[in-house]
Amino acid sequence: MHIYAEPFIHTTGGEVIHAAIIGASGYSGAELLRLLAQRTDVSVDVITAGASAGKSVDEVYPAFSGTIDLRFTSLDYASLEGMDIVFVALPSGEAMSVVPQLMGKVGRIIDLGGDFRLSSTSLYSRYYGRAHTAPELLGTAVYGLPEIFKEQIAAAAFVANPGCYPTSAILPLYPLLKSGCVSPAGIVINSVSGVSGAGRSSSVEMSFAEVNENVRAYKVGRHQHIPEMEMVLSKGAGAEVTLSFVPHLVPITRGIYSTIHATLAKSCDAAALSEVYRNAYADASFVRIRESIPQIKDVVNSNFCDIGFTVDQRTGQVIITSTIDNLVKGAAGQAIQNMNIMFALPEGLGLGTRKEEAYV
Amino acid sequence: MHIYAEPFIHTTGGEVIHAAIIGASGYSGAELLRLLAQRTDVSVDVITAGASAGKSVDEVYPAFSGTIDLRFTSLDYASLEGMDIVFVALPSGEAMSVVPQLMGKVGRIIDLGGDFRLSSTSLYSRYYGRAHTAPELLGTAVYGLPEIFKEQIAAAAFVANPGCYPTSAILPLYPLLKSGCVSPAGIVINSVSGVSGAGRSSSVEMSFAEVNENVRAYKVGRHQHIPEMEMVLSKGAGAEVTLSFVPHLVPITRGIYSTIHATLAKSCDAAALSEVYRNAYADASFVRIRESIPQIKDVVNSNFCDIGFTVDQRTGQVIITSTIDNLVKGAAGQAIQNMNIMFALPEGLGLGTRKEEAYV
Amino acid sequence: MHIYAEPFIHTTGGEVIHAAIIGASGYSGAELLRLLAQRTDVSVDVITAGASAGKSVDEVYPAFSGTIDLRFTSLDYASLEGMDIVFVALPSGEAMSVVPQLMGKVGRIIDLGGDFRLSSTSLYSRYYGRAHTAPELLGTAVYGLPEIFKEQIAAAAFVANPGCYPTSAILPLYPLLKSGCVSPAGIVINSVSGVSGAGRSSSVEMSFAEVNENVRAYKVGRHQHIPEMEMVLSKGAGAEVTLSFVPHLVPITRGIYSTIHATLAKSCDAAALSEVYRNAYADASFVRIRESIPQIKDVVNSNFCDIGFTVDQRTGQVIITSTIDNLVKGAAGQAIQNMNIMFALPEGLGLGTRKEEAYV
Amino acid sequence: MHIYAEPFIHTTGGEVIHAAIIGASGYSGAELLRLLAQRTDVSVDVITAGASAGKSVDEVYPAFSGTIDLRFTSLDYASLEGMDIVFVALPSGEAMSVVPQLMGKVGRIIDLGGDFRLSSTSLYSRYYGRAHTAPELLGTAVYGLPEIFKEQIAAAAFVANPGCYPTSAILPLYPLLKSGCVSPAGIVINSVSGVSGAGRSSSVEMSFAEVNENVRAYKVGRHQHIPEMEMVLSKGAGAEVTLSFVPHLVPITRGIYSTIHATLAKSCDAAALSEVYRNAYADASFVRIRESIPQIKDVVNSNFCDIGFTVDQRTGQVIITSTIDNLVKGAAGQAIQNMNIMFALPEGLGLGTRKEEAYV
Repeated sequence: MHIYAEPFIHTTGGEVIHAAIIGASGYSGAELLRLLAQRTDVSVDVITAGASAGKSVDEVYPAFSGTIDLRFTSLDYASLEGMDIVFVALPSGEAMSVVPQLMGKVGRIIDLGGDFRLSSTSLYSRYYGRAHTAPELLGTAVYGLPEIFKEQIAAAAFVANPGCYPTSAILPLYPLLKSGCVSPAGIVINSVSGVSGAGRSSSVEMSFAEVNENVRAYKVGRHQHIPEMEMVLSKGAGAEVTLSFVPHLVPITRGIYSTIHATLAKSCDAAALSEVYRNAYADASFVRIRESIPQIKDVVNSNFCDIGFTVDQRTGQVIITSTIDNLVKGAAGQAIQNMNIMFALPEGLGLGTRKEEAYV
Repeated sequence: MHIYAEPFIHTTGGEVIHAAIIGASGYSGAELLRLLAQRTDVSVDVITAGASAGKSVDEVYPAFSGTIDLRFTSLDYASLEGMDIVFVALPSGEAMSVVPQLMGKVGRIIDLGGDFRLSSTSLYSRYYGRAHTAPELLGTAVYGLPEIFKEQIAAAAFVANPGCYPTSAILPLYPLLKSGCVSPAGIVINSVSGVSGAGRSSSVEMSFAEVNENVRAYKVGRHQHIPEMEMVLSKGAGAEVTLSFVPHLVPITRGIYSTIHATLAKSCDAAALSEVYRNAYADASFVRIRESIPQIKDVVNSNFCDIGFTVDQRTGQVIITSTIDNLVKGAAGQAIQNMNIMFALPEGLGLGTRKEEAYV
Repeated sequence: MHIYAEPFIHTTGGEVIHAAIIGASGYSGAELLRLLAQRTDVSVDVITAGASAGKSVDEVYPAFSGTIDLRFTSLDYASLEGMDIVFVALPSGEAMSVVPQLMGKVGRIIDLGGDFRLSSTSLYSRYYGRAHTAPELLGTAVYGLPEIFKEQIAAAAFVANPGCYPTSAILPLYPLLKSGCVSPAGIVINSVSGVSGAGRSSSVEMSFAEVNENVRAYKVGRHQHIPEMEMVLSKGAGAEVTLSFVPHLVPITRGIYSTIHATLAKSCDAAALSEVYRNAYADASFVRIRESIPQIKDVVNSNFCDIGFTVDQRTGQVIITSTIDNLVKGAAGQAIQNMNIMFALPEGLGLGTRKEEAYV
Repeated sequence: MHIYAEPFIHTTGGEVIHAAIIGASGYSGAELLRLLAQRTDVSVDVITAGASAGKSVDEVYPAFSGTIDLRFTSLDYASLEGMDIVFVALPSGEAMSVVPQLMGKVGRIIDLGGDFRLSSTSLYSRYYGRAHTAPELLGTAVYGLPEIFKEQIAAAAFVANPGCYPTSAILPLYPLLKSGCVSPAGIVINSVSGVSGAGRSSSVEMSFAEVNENVRAYKVGRHQHIPEMEMVLSKGAGAEVTLSFVPHLVPITRGIYSTIHATLAKSCDAAALSEVYRNAYADASFVRIRESIPQIKDVVNSNFCDIGFTVDQRTGQVIITSTIDNLVKGAAGQAIQNMNIMFALPEGLGLGTRKEEAYV
């Protein structure tokens, strides 16, 4: 059997990485736990929670019974001092009061929320609807999209993990914008998301009876991931990108599917686009350029981002479809990929990846 | 075309029935609204709600936009005086403080909850986990299962509408117990229910991410519908019935499916069971004895209860499967069927029924 | 209670309309049956099917047991002669050999498929992938979108019922194009559909295990509904409309949700758009312009099309979301609406509608 | 962090196990591939398929793109000679013509289907509806339920992997029967299953539109897993067990949930049952006796069987609920567990398990 896959696990002869997860009882936190529990080179020493503090992991997530023996604690900064890495998996708006307390006291920080992705307080307050309380830290985090900012991540002590929608949109668009194959103007992004993206929710509108057999758009044209996409894509394009983005909720648990319309440069055809992607992602463990149309089920539970594209001659557009698991490549998996890079480990370690990226 | 179906609507030359719904913003209340809005002989004058008081119906249920122009109000007993009928669609435990206020001031009362189905305060407190605050009214309501207690319902001013699980279990079991074809001992009932049975919920455990791709039993052997089933079935059997009942939650919105094991009397075979059912339900508009195995999708949005059975020679049992829409035959539809009977209207009026039951 | 709703049923004193359904065993055919069975002024005399010929309706659709007593027959043109109306609910490609046989022998014809919507054989063959075998009939059918072509439908003997996606896209776009508020260039339509749109399917890719927890685009930029949308919208715009359309499959049974991006004319703002819609659909029974964002569950099982819109100042676009039940307003309900108009009945008869449109 | 979990992967210094999968394109076969691809001590050399022969794995299962580089071939016995192990993942009825060809030519055989679980041709023909064509091999396979028959499996060259329903029913019942805590008479088993249990299906009845929002029982009292359960449980009880079993289909992809009613011996109470389970499964890696009621989502994608029980004093029964992932513990995972035992490897290797079972 020729398999690209490599052992999920790296038993390092070296030192163990000591890690903490702040906000570990949410879905992203639990996904971090699930993935890190498979590793022998990482020790998760502290997991904090709000309402679930004091409970064992398997009380909140019975699936972990018999595999993870940890207890949620209340956030206590003293217990975090000296950690090699701290993952912050809090809802946006909470991290900005936590991260400043960690600075300088822990080795590295990866924030999975949205508080430190933007560099502008005005954009933050406009899209997040609140003032930023740690403006001095804005712009200090490296944007943790490894396929694009690997070198910066490797050198970073503080990483802002990308949002789920931006991950699904930036990965397919960035190389095309950078190459000039698509225009920075007129980009339209429609995404559908599973409900786990909204976190562990107790709202009526996220109840099964309301979500099941239903589809609805939300935050049309004003979702907080818009400035994040525009910021990164503008870097790629070398010009200001203003895009339209509409997120939708569909009755699935995991997964994001983004369909992107962009104006194709006259000089580019399908072969040129393929070439751009091939060059951009030749070394990427987790981007798969697909010849058929991607679908969510092919990436669920994995760290892959699948990308397909169609050139629409009639309209002069390229139509791109991309898909990720919002909790893996859109959150916890990407955070671990970033951690691996920050610790000079193979980026795919513990994530199931291609042979060449796997650790010896 | 030979159709049994008759007009859903009865345009009466006579007087209009004035109705109120207390607790109209829940799923059962909304289903009452949906069904009653189709009728010209019933005027829904007052609908009350808790948190939604003051809102229009279409703010809470946009589906009704352009079809129902009503506003939820707070419960105000003065506004209910003189109503021909009041439907109480409150969670169990709330009706027992409301119904006493209505007695003697409104024409008829149908309580869709569980507060007045049992006749014993001790059973109520054991299974519902609270003391009954209107014990003087216990036993005064007629149990509103029209296929069995039609005459009593016709004469009643106060009806306790059956629970959803009991409806699905009593309809198939009652005739067999009464005929002596099955033994009152050793009955096992396993039911699965859609989530709307739990009402409009804002709990994490009813959220989509928790219910989807999941099945779980709950309240094993201690569900509050057990004494209700045993009470009615004991009447049918003429002997005390003690049964085992396990409810399960499955990821669908509407519907209950009950699978029932009962010991078959030696004197009865499949033909005898068919005969018993044929006699019992010859005049029943909403019971369909099926030759194939019933399925939930055949009864969704309808007031039907579909019943199938298999004689298992190896074990000496009859295995019965029955299915209803929990919000229709298990709640609002059955309540309207009861109302029709109480007002001497054809029982199927406004419910979609067979020709012979249809009005005129 | 102020309700706009009117009786679903019209008991006419006049003559009964004799109807046939060709291809009645599919989902659209069954939906026609479900809706027509409620009417006393229409008699469905003949229903034909392929593999199910000879079976009773309730063998194929047990839900109809006890309510519809009809049997599928093989297609026999003699049995159709003299019918007042024939609904053709065959897969695209089959109607073009059937409709010519019916011409002149039956009163009126409504084809629910795609064979007679386009007026160009070249467009037909390009998008449907086959040659048209009745080119002489192309262009003879009136496009049956009642909100736009009511007068022509009233006078028509042959109506081509619109596709489900086009219904959801044309209704919101037509008035805006006609008014000049949006540009005919650069329109992007992304739609998601429930699986019933694909018909009763026995393919692996439509099996539950493949569709559940999945989303995928299909026929990107080449769906056969594109020319139909462009044809009708070009009429509205008075200019050639070339649009981009991407359909997606999501794990729901019924419903279409379309999200549309269009460039807003500088002279138009949100108030102007509201005004355009108000004027365009003042008399429309089944179009609801919503202030909140529409969702599929509000239109399921109904003939409504719900439309919402957001002006996106940043991009100069209007973003429209619209939703229908693909089997009702997207197929059978719209066909009945067309039939009502063709027979000079109130268009909402048997479809649940506003008071003012109701009969009498 | 105290974790029980151990590396998924064993990098053996020793020889690699050469494996083949016959019928690898079905869901069980694909699950075998998914699990085995993570191992470096197993080389999957040959995978055969019917209609998919000639295709690469990622053409049929795009999720494997970039991780598994194998091609389905037609069944060719020559290519299998000398294999260390052959997994037969064919539909029941097909394996009985394949296995005889493998006997003596390959190291070990594990049949995941039902052809070799029973020891009686008459039971086989009665429940499977066909004659057995290799009766001489009936009774030669060891029943591959490792928690009960570990020693026999370790010594076996031919293992019949248990059915999914039997796995979920035998694991909780066997110890209770063996201990005398429950009676061999009167056992009632109701199970619900996700649709992947039916395999990759192209039937209308397994299509999304038919399964979604639906529940139905099937093969009531006559499912082919009944004799298998009775055979094994009778061994445990030391007396003939005749049980009643009703399987149901629910709209989920993976998972089985079994609810079991059994008569409790007077001498046993809840504490006694706990003690029985504790003793029976002290060394079992994959059985979790739960204090709360199990749910499917806790075992999905894992090899765990979760078991909970409630003593129902009123009826003198114990009500057991158990749940597995039908494709893992109910099929491929259990097959790998058996393989591990047959090759004297830790039984949990490559399956995610407790520390004590992990390799080294």
